[in-house]
Amino acid sequence: MITVRNIEELRAQIASMKKNVLGKEPAVGLVPTMGFLHEGHASLMREARKNNDIVVLSIFVNPIQFGPNEDFETYPRDEQRDLGIADKEGIDIVFIPTVEVMYPHPTKTKIRVADITDRLCGASRPGHFDGVTTVVAKLFNMVQPDNAYFGMKDAQQVAVLSQMVLDLNMPINIVPCPIVREADGLALSSRNVYLSSKERKEALALSRSLKLAQWKTEQQEDATVGQIRKLIIDEINTSETAVIDYVDILTFPGLEPIEDRVQITEPDDVIIALAVKFGKTRLIDNHRLQKTEVLSRV
Amino acid sequence: MITVRNIEELRAQIASMKKNVLGKEPAVGLVPTMGFLHEGHASLMREARKNNDIVVLSIFVNPIQFGPNEDFETYPRDEQRDLGIADKEGIDIVFIPTVEVMYPHPTKTKIRVADITDRLCGASRPGHFDGVTTVVAKLFNMVQPDNAYFGMKDAQQVAVLSQMVLDLNMPINIVPCPIVREADGLALSSRNVYLSSKERKEALALSRSLKLAQWKTEQQEDATVGQIRKLIIDEINTSETAVIDYVDILTFPGLEPIEDRVQITEPDDVIIALAVKFGKTRLIDNHRLQKTEVLSRV
Repeated sequence: MITVRNIEELRAQIASMKKNVLGKEPAVGLVPTMGFLHEGHASLMREARKNNDIVVLSIFVNPIQFGPNEDFETYPRDEQRDLGIADKEGIDIVFIPTVEVMYPHPTKTKIRVADITDRLCGASRPGHFDGVTTVVAKLFNMVQPDNAYFGMKDAQQVAVLSQMVLDLNMPINIVPCPIVREADGLALSSRNVYLSSKERKEALALSRSLKLAQWKTEQQEDATVGQIRKLIIDEINTSETAVIDYVDILTFPGLEPIEDRVQITEPDDVIIALAVKFGKTRLIDNHRLQKTEVLSRV
Repeated sequence: MITVRNIEELRAQIASMKKNVLGKEPAVGLVPTMGFLHEGHASLMREARKNNDIVVLSIFVNPIQFGPNEDFETYPRDEQRDLGIADKEGIDIVFIPTVEVMYPHPTKTKIRVADITDRLCGASRPGHFDGVTTVVAKLFNMVQPDNAYFGMKDAQQVAVLSQMVLDLNMPINIVPCPIVREADGLALSSRNVYLSSKERKEALALSRSLKLAQWKTEQQEDATVGQIRKLIIDEINTSETAVIDYVDILTFPGLEPIEDRVQITEPDDVIIALAVKFGKTRLIDNHRLQKTEVLSRV
């Protein structure tokens, strides 16, 4: 495994590794992360390793996707531990640029995906997705991957990036990977380290409410969006400290809101997305409804 | 020469031609145009032909860079003549997509370069440059060229695209090519066909005023921006029908406005940009100041 910190070396290493792949067009996989890696990231790396000749992991806490009152400065970082995990998962190149390498001058150029960035996290984090699309496009142009891996934990991010790739004809396959959860249901997130042990317990209301929603749509075929939403809100409110940012039920990947009175007849096209604050920590979780209980991973 | 009209065939043809370039990494050149080709476009094609193994010419009148009251519908088109010129210049692939091929659904994604798009044509054509950067990025992603050729007639376009490529780390070399003029000085433009013979004569005030400005900076080393600007405005106003949109003197490529009282000590870094209406036709022209008269092409 090679660790590189500047763009010229990144390009040179990828070019050189590509030359060593003989007899076929080499496939390059990219796993873009903000580091502080957990089992969710590891699952992306394994998926990338399985399907590509060369796998690049990027670790970069991207300042332009954080709002002025958000946690850019305090976002957890642990480079040594991250490198250990990357090595174990068989990564070929770890790219760890500084802010100066990524933004030698403040970027004048931004990529903006309209509509689907207005809702969910876009509504409470203005400019966030412009920062995400812009930095991901930069990484795409540096690595020129065939496949790029993103966790469905950030379902809106997957939808926004898929739209960008489609609209701009980027020759890249976005591969969404399933949410990885703790044994008790909590979705893995680098931000979970912020939780007190009391908050950690209360945060289980998120996955519990999503499981309840899945169960309800299986039990009651004519369940409406409004009924499901109420069930989820009531379940989250059993937690003392939970403050709901949003509980939204939308189409996926279009992220069109669905009206409360609508019955859920095609659960595969429906995603339930939550953002809830526990103390100072804002957690997100989501679940794409499935037709049979067997498939449910919640 | 091959004419292709859809993206899949474009990619396939480029890939196949690349395989036929033996013993070295093939260089791909792209000349993006809106068609109705003239000698200015031909000069871009020749420059591309000289320095690349494979040359792609795109012809697409891009609706999203036209404002609602602009000339998208009436923009001159002549595919048969264009194909003849492209063939003569040794183009390998002409890509002529329809609007439906480029935008199968309205694009939600736009690329925006801030600051340098606010002035000059950006001020009078809001949204124009977002349409340009977005369509050029799409063409870049389809063709994946090493070099892309643009005329300095659209100097602001060159500045904006160079900023986009820099900020987004696109692995592409933007090659600006000199303005091509008629024998009497009129800068070549597909929109010149709109001019009546009287307007055609009056439009010579543009190149004449730029030539005058170049001469003045050579004659008077302490000439100020304000003096030069006044000289140009007076010269343009000798035309009866000319209506000035802007006469701006800026840094290049940064496009920072320079104050009137400043003396022009480093002419190489200074561009004079004009937009003037003759009847219904809005023409642009520009000149990058040069140190010696010998180099002047005006």
